[in-house]
Amino acid sequence: MSRTVYVNGEYLPEERATISIFDRGFLFADGVYEVTSVLDGKLIDFAGHAKRLERSLGELEISAPCSVDDLLEIHRRLVAENDITDGLVYLQITRGAADRDFAYPTDATPTLVLFTQSKPGLADSPAARTGIKVISIEDQRWGRRDIKTVQLLYPSMGKMMAKAAGADDAWMVEDGAVTEGTSNNAYIVKGNTIVTRQLGTEILHGITRAAVLRFAREAQMRVEERPFTIDEAKAADEAFITSASSFVMPVVEMDGAPIGTGKPGAVATRLREIYLEESRKAAV
Amino acid sequence: MSRTVYVNGEYLPEERATISIFDRGFLFADGVYEVTSVLDGKLIDFAGHAKRLERSLGELEISAPCSVDDLLEIHRRLVAENDITDGLVYLQITRGAADRDFAYPTDATPTLVLFTQSKPGLADSPAARTGIKVISIEDQRWGRRDIKTVQLLYPSMGKMMAKAAGADDAWMVEDGAVTEGTSNNAYIVKGNTIVTRQLGTEILHGITRAAVLRFAREAQMRVEERPFTIDEAKAADEAFITSASSFVMPVVEMDGAPIGTGKPGAVATRLREIYLEESRKAAV
Repeated sequence: MSRTVYVNGEYLPEERATISIFDRGFLFADGVYEVTSVLDGKLIDFAGHAKRLERSLGELEISAPCSVDDLLEIHRRLVAENDITDGLVYLQITRGAADRDFAYPTDATPTLVLFTQSKPGLADSPAARTGIKVISIEDQRWGRRDIKTVQLLYPSMGKMMAKAAGADDAWMVEDGAVTEGTSNNAYIVKGNTIVTRQLGTEILHGITRAAVLRFAREAQMRVEERPFTIDEAKAADEAFITSASSFVMPVVEMDGAPIGTGKPGAVATRLREIYLEESRKAAV
Repeated sequence: MSRTVYVNGEYLPEERATISIFDRGFLFADGVYEVTSVLDGKLIDFAGHAKRLERSLGELEISAPCSVDDLLEIHRRLVAENDITDGLVYLQITRGAADRDFAYPTDATPTLVLFTQSKPGLADSPAARTGIKVISIEDQRWGRRDIKTVQLLYPSMGKMMAKAAGADDAWMVEDGAVTEGTSNNAYIVKGNTIVTRQLGTEILHGITRAAVLRFAREAQMRVEERPFTIDEAKAADEAFITSASSFVMPVVEMDGAPIGTGKPGAVATRLREIYLEESRKAAV
């Protein structure tokens, strides 16, 4: 069945959902995005995603095409029309269409696109029970990873490198330290301490990251926000990732070697439970 | 008057030229491009651009949507239908449309888009007589600048930084050395020597760069391919850039200070003449 998607004010069947070839999202990767998870038909941390979206737009001087309330309404209508129980809503805003020029156009209208993806059983993924395997690769992305732009070619390449190596994802390494996964934040656990890289321009300011660290601290877990190495990851007791669509996902193998017992760890498992429980409660 | 543009086998008025919102060029910046200049209705160094396009596609494992002969025919038809005397033809190929996933789709058909821009008097630009002003900015782009991808947000930002500073363009600096301009290769001249950064993953392998260096050597000019600094640029006798659409363009100011006499230099002026003369002869 064809999805209903949203493009610049219209709800359309996906086959008819198009944008101009002059859209700067297409010609210059001049756009930002957000992905919000849906559980039981409700949006997980919509407010967090809306706030980060506003920040990304501000950093690029792209004006918001509509209010946050309007965005919420579009999200909800797409979830309803596409009968999404579990899944996600993808949102992209670009600077809009204009004749091609590196300089920003003065008269372009931002493009707003949203679509859903149905992911039945999203919160009960088998991968959460077995854990995922990652490899380490060099971080070759641009310098402003705190802006959630659609410049995602290198993360895509990283995912393909992981697949080619028989793994599920890749952790990226810059100047000897892990930045993050291809589409998620990265964590290790050693003793009683959760270690994850501090915020900065080097990593995405994960909405799920913020929530999970808050829950971890509330549960009296010790958190250190600092760079860590692949060697530390290999010697860790456990490891995990967080993202809007994977929530908290255990990592059980790094570059072919098991991490800890090679099975999902207690900390990741507990944080996943807490995150899902609290997020469902707060879903809108 | 509306342009005729090309999208996936069809010649269309630009208002109707669209691509799917699921195109990976739009969602992941998963695409490459070329810009070929047109002088007197003929294509400048089409073969060079076609060859680099093939390399870019190969690096990203995107299959070519058609043969080089087909591409040439599309270029020529667009030039004719849009009555382009001087201007350029823009070409973009993406991995195609597929439901959103970081991993490359196995069944997507590459997207092919071409359009023209008319630039009357392109080879007789007033800027070539006065020279342009540049500023220096940090190079924040991804690591594979030798692949001509549409991840052009940072070059766009750089162009805006230049405008805000009252300049025309920005030279990007990494680890203390100039990489290149936002959409062009960068050169300085000191004594009898032309200095420009050597090829590598740090810069685009300019088609115009290759031709200009060949002409310079044929004219017995001395060429050094090595990194150089902004201080060297400020102390140079002259400076210039090359690109498909600016050919050879003198740079007369760096970060507000004149370079050499602050006027277009003899080397840049001579190389521009030679390049235009030879390119017109070889145009197809």
